[in-house]
Order: sequence, then structure tokens, then C-alpha cells
Amino acid sequence: MHQHTRTDPYTDRYAARAAGMVPSEIRALFAVASRPEVVSLAGGMPNITALPLDVVGDMLGELTRRRGTEALQYASAQGDPELRARICEVMALEGVHGSPDDVIVTVGSQQALDMITRIFIDPGDVVLAEAPSYVGALGTFAMYQADVVHVPLDEDGLIPAALRETLERLRKEGRRVKFLYTVPNFQNPAGVTLSETRRAEILAICAAHQVLVVEDNPYGLLGFDREPMRALRADDPDNVIYLGSFSKTFAPGFRVGWALAPHAIRAKLVLAAESAILCHSSFTQFAVREYLATQPWQQQIKSFRVMYAERRDAMLESLEALMPDGCTWTRPGGGFFVWLTLPEGLDSKAMAPRAIAERVAYVPGTGFYADGQGRRHMRLSYCYPEPDRIREGVRRLAGVIERELQMRDTFGTARARERGGVDTPGPETC
Amino acid sequence: MHQHTRTDPYTDRYAARAAGMVPSEIRALFAVASRPEVVSLAGGMPNITALPLDVVGDMLGELTRRRGTEALQYASAQGDPELRARICEVMALEGVHGSPDDVIVTVGSQQALDMITRIFIDPGDVVLAEAPSYVGALGTFAMYQADVVHVPLDEDGLIPAALRETLERLRKEGRRVKFLYTVPNFQNPAGVTLSETRRAEILAICAAHQVLVVEDNPYGLLGFDREPMRALRADDPDNVIYLGSFSKTFAPGFRVGWALAPHAIRAKLVLAAESAILCHSSFTQFAVREYLATQPWQQQIKSFRVMYAERRDAMLESLEALMPDGCTWTRPGGGFFVWLTLPEGLDSKAMAPRAIAERVAYVPGTGFYADGQGRRHMRLSYCYPEPDRIREGVRRLAGVIERELQMRDTFGTARARERGGVDTPGPETC
Repeated sequence: MHQHTRTDPYTDRYAARAAGMVPSEIRALFAVASRPEVVSLAGGMPNITALPLDVVGDMLGELTRRRGTEALQYASAQGDPELRARICEVMALEGVHGSPDDVIVTVGSQQALDMITRIFIDPGDVVLAEAPSYVGALGTFAMYQADVVHVPLDEDGLIPAALRETLERLRKEGRRVKFLYTVPNFQNPAGVTLSETRRAEILAICAAHQVLVVEDNPYGLLGFDREPMRALRADDPDNVIYLGSFSKTFAPGFRVGWALAPHAIRAKLVLAAESAILCHSSFTQFAVREYLATQPWQQQIKSFRVMYAERRDAMLESLEALMPDGCTWTRPGGGFFVWLTLPEGLDSKAMAPRAIAERVAYVPGTGFYADGQGRRHMRLSYCYPEPDRIREGVRRLAGVIERELQMRDTFGTARARERGGVDTPGPETC
Repeated sequence: MHQHTRTDPYTDRYAARAAGMVPSEIRALFAVASRPEVVSLAGGMPNITALPLDVVGDMLGELTRRRGTEALQYASAQGDPELRARICEVMALEGVHGSPDDVIVTVGSQQALDMITRIFIDPGDVVLAEAPSYVGALGTFAMYQADVVHVPLDEDGLIPAALRETLERLRKEGRRVKFLYTVPNFQNPAGVTLSETRRAEILAICAAHQVLVVEDNPYGLLGFDREPMRALRADDPDNVIYLGSFSKTFAPGFRVGWALAPHAIRAKLVLAAESAILCHSSFTQFAVREYLATQPWQQQIKSFRVMYAERRDAMLESLEALMPDGCTWTRPGGGFFVWLTLPEGLDSKAMAPRAIAERVAYVPGTGFYADGQGRRHMRLSYCYPEPDRIREGVRRLAGVIERELQMRDTFGTARARERGGVDTPGPETC
């Protein structure tokens, strides 16, 4: 047991769902990892230095002076209608034709995940998720006592045959599968993208099994080499809930995301959101709406793409040049993340403190599975550090892995210590 | 059943907790009530026209230019440390001495309520709440399938003897009572304030029964006739969770509220919040922090108090002058609300459409009870309309009640139609 839990005088009063809510040991590591001497390849924070802060500052000042009585007042629980209309324009870039009335504005995609899980999941219901999957989503599913069943992916994303087999097995077992959670583009953490042919297959399989698809798409517009792909939602509006976010295409500091859902589900989501937060901030909604209305946002996204592509290149080139034999990794076409697999016998979780001692941080793979897998994997992010820092970080990491390999060859397979807590490392890394 | 539910193709897939989530008939009424020709005494929106928008606009523009890379980035799940320190200074006005480390910043108090209920309530657990109680809290308790047991209040707030009796009865019944939810100052909806002697009694009773107190205090600094009262939290830090908000003392559009909780509970709240929204908006937290650091915020609250006192006077004077015999109402010393009781045989819910037809809106009392009580009551708010509009609204309402009384005397007691849905009328009225 974690020390904190032992001394909690309220322990016997919490709800059942709160029993597993203890801070993970990884959190303590990340507090250290945020020191400036550490190169963090752990963070999922977008790099917003490319934003013209003067222009945004003028825009927000003017917005307050001109529309303050609205922008500083309560909003509706569904979100600002004009922002919802703009959101539909953004989604049109991926072939989605939704009505503003089917959109709900949320406190980032995270709140959308929370609301979806809240309205669909009874304890023990099954949620399907890629193996690996987004740590923040897994945390929410755990909070509602869902049973997460992982479905493997490869470099073309989620594997349709594996999805079909899993669904058939679960059906035989009489389990209630509520939805498939997927990040189809530049997946967090694996960096892979679901291929076009697989998209149609996944949709057909889920429709046949009456399993909703939750399409989480924060990185869809951040592809480096091609135009945005057609969203899953574009081809099955009745069976897909689409989640979007301005955190990576504008700025995370406003916490403006959204869900586009079939109408009846959207109605439930609004009622759930009202109970959870009453309404989102008017001001931040007005800020994003004003940004979309008055600023060259598509041009800004192009600048982001160029910046992130340069960092992706720095990371892939360094990995190629420096990583010991036996390491493999994905080659993302966009987004923020590379997924690295260690040689057999190495353990990313056990290695993390030693990496931080060598002034490089990553997220151990275990955080991205609900079932304890992931010890041979790690997530490396290239979104935040400068290219030179990325190269230095990879150099340090390669050194750590080299030494682990020597240890393995001398003393045998590494064994991680087991301790309490869930491996969710906090907002800074998501 | 509501029409929408009948046609929802996803009906058999929702979680048990979502079954009761259908929009109430009152919502439809309020859509009409927002028309300009209707005097709304229903809304709980603060009046922010008194804010100097030019000054706030300059402040936000400057904040973005100077601190944009932080203010537009992700925040920590607990909230900005400097804001949390400022929040402790605000609470000191009510005798509370808390540590910034025990504060979590939330998306309004509503999110704090959601997080508290999430970590404490298993389905069927008891929450005690005043009769009547805040509609938004009741909605959250219902969402987590809590069993709300009401405890009566009078003009001095919650009645200690009734609380004791209720707790003893519940103990005999073997029920798990998790917390008492109370709004001690200028209560929403009743407008009453818990007296000083009762504060000590309530704390002692709850401590003796090992029942936490959730002290929701959005209006505490908005008293008209005296200095702020000492918070419950000031005298029992280990058994009280204090909720505060800047929605009424600065502006609701940022959605910045907070909870001050015993340390172990605060730790759970942060983990719950991370799962729910990842983190709150940095920008809005910086906005409030900057406002507290650079603007004469206490002076601003004084202006708010003067404005609201004038409106309270307008309402009480008109009620005195115009209401038919048999109506009674509370006389709030601060805050936003008057609670009116109709003569026997009248029904505030059944009367609502007729009132709106006469261009005046209120919130029927039924929304403020978990158990169907409240038909003889209504909440009248004086926070938003100008004094002349308040007088006109009361004049119209008095006319409606007069006609209802004539109907009653001619045809007998009014009978409300029963329909589905929960009487939660949305953010505009909370």
C-alpha cells in the first residue's frame, strides 16, 4: 500500500470507485523530471512558442472590452452556438459534416471522455481500447469501473481481425461491450495511423456488433506528409462519437474540446455535463471562436506542422544513429509520439529512475495498458523540446539502455519492483 | 415519458445512472422565459455590468503578451499555486486559515460538488441537504444515485434539532450517511443564513455522527448589512470541506471555483479531477490570479453589495406592497434570492406557464427538493434585473397569483399535471 493511503483518516468513508485512487510512483519521478537539467521526452505538451502572443493578447483584450458582458457571464451547458458552428467547419477538413446542434463543447477531450463513460458504463461493462492506448482515457475508464479489453495494433493501426476475434470471444462470454475507444491518427502513445482500408473494416465490424466507436482525434490536422485523412465519423454518423480539441491546433490553456455525437447521445452528454460542471467557461469559448473567426488558423497549423516535423526528424535520425541493436520504434507521420520497444529482458518502468538520474525522461509503457503490459515499451515525445535537446535526450537514453543491456548480460533479466498506484503521470505528460 | 427518450435508438445501451437523465419540462419553459419581454426572476446570473471591462480587457491583453507561454499551456490538475495562495487570502475574510496545498481549483463549485460526490458516494448512500437545497447540487447527487434526505430550515438556517433527529433515525435504520451539504450564507434558494449559535451546534452534531460537512459558500462575501460571518470550516478544519467561487465576486465566465479540504481528501479530489478534465484552464486561473493581485477586488465586491442590496430592497418593497394575503417570503440579508410560499391550494409548478404567459418567470419550488416537495414554493431572484424591472415583475406575479386564488376559490385546489424529467432548469438559473 502507498503510504498516503495508510494514514488517510477518511479511508472507510470513500466510495468503492475511489479505492484505487492513489497517486502512482511515476508521479514522484515526474516531479524530478521537470527540472531544467532533465531532457523530458515524457511530456505531451504542445509547443506554443510559435503562437503570436501579441496578436492573441490584442484579440483577447478587445474581446473583453467589446463583448465582456457576454464573455464573462455563464454559458449554456452545450456551449456557445457560434463556436459550435465554427467547430463544424474545422471537422469538415476531415470529411465530417455535422450539425452544430449535435456538438457539445467540453473542457478538453478529457471531459468528453468522462461524460461518455458516465452515460454508458456500468461497473463491469467492457470498453475496447488499442494496445497501447491513451493513458488519460484508461484512467477515466478505470474511474467508472469499466473492464478495459485491449486489441492489438501494428504500424497500420488497430488490427481488424483482432477486433473481430475479440468481439466474438466477448459475445460468447456474454459480456456487454459498450464502445471501442480509438485514436486513429498519430496515435497516443504509439504514433501509428489507421490505414484507409482498415477504417472501413473497423466501422463495419463495430456496426455489426452494435458497438459504438469513440474516435478521439486531437492530432488529425497535424500530419506532416499528407492531407488530413477522412474521419471515421464521416462514414458512420450514427455509430461514431467524434472527439476533437483545440489544445494542439491552437492552445491547451483554454481547455476547449468538443464531442460530435448522434443526437440522442448528445442530449444525454449535455445533461451529464451540466451536472458535472454546470457549463464551460464563456470566456475561453469566446476566445477560441474569435481566434477562428479573425486569425489565419489554418496557416498557424501549417507552421505547427513544420515545427513538429523537424522535431520528429531529429528524433528519428538520432534513434537511427544511436539506439543499441534490438531496439525498435514506430515512425509517425504526424502528431507528437514515437513508441519504442526495448530489447528482451529490459524493463522501461524499472529503468525510469536510472534514466532520470542520467537526465532524460520518458513515459514507461505500463501507463498505456490497463492490464500491466508494457514493460518493454516506452513513449518518447518530440513535441516540446528543441531539436538539439531531442538529440541530446536520445543520446542519454541510448547510454542508459546500453548500460541496462550490460547489466542484463551480466546479471540476467531485470525485475521491476511492484508497488501500488496507477501509472498515470498527470496532465503534463498527457 | 418524454418524447425524446421514446425515440432514442441507444436507450438499451446506457448506464443505469443515465436512465433518469431526461430534460425536464421546465427547461422548455425557460427557453421562452429568456425572451426580452419576460421579466425573469428565475435567473441566478450575477450582474457583471458593474465590472470595469476596459480595465479587465487591458489586464487580460497584457497577461497574454507577458505570460502567454504559461497562461496558454496546460495547468496542473490541482491548479495554479499562486492562485491557490490568493484563494487562502480570500477565505481569511471569513476566519478560514487554510494551506494552499489543501486547495484544489475547480470548474466552478459545481465541479467540486461532482468530485466530492464521486469520491464519497456509492449508490444508495445518504446525503443530507437542507429543505430546500441548491438545484445543481441535487442534480449531482442524483447522478451518483445518492439518496438525498432533506432536513428542514427556518429563517435562521438549518435546524439543529431536526438534523440530530434525522441522523439518529438514519443510524437506527442502518443507513450510511456520507455528508451534510449546506449553503450557510444567503442560501440558494431560501435566502436564509445560518445563525452563529447554530453553526457551533451543526458542527458538533456532524462531528459526533462522523458525517462530513460540505459547506458551499458562493455568496458569503455578498452580505448587505454586516461583515462576513465566520465560516463553518474555520472551526472544524478536519470535518468540513469548504467550497468557494469567483462567479459572484468577480465573474462567472472564467468558471473558477475551489474546494478547501482535509489533506487526504484533497489528494483524492485531485486524482478525480484529473480523470474528469485533466486540468482546468490555465488562462482563466491566471486571469483570476491577476485580477486579485492587481485590481481593487474588495472594493469591487462592495459595489456589487450596494447594487444587490438596492435590488433586494426593490423586491421586498414590491412584495410587501403587492402580494395577496396568504403569501409569505424570506427577507435575505445578502445574496440573490427570496423564497416565496404561496397560499394553500396553489401550485407553483402548475402556475409557471401561466406566469410566463403574463411575462414573468420564476423557478418553481419543486426543483429544490429531491422528493417532489415544493409545489407551494418558488424562488425569486433579484440579482439580474434592474430595480424597475423587479418591481414590474413582482406586479405581474402578484396578478397571476390573484387570478390563481380566484380560480382556487371557484374550482377548488389546483392539480399539477405530472410529467417526466427532473426539474433542473439549466445553468442560466443556478
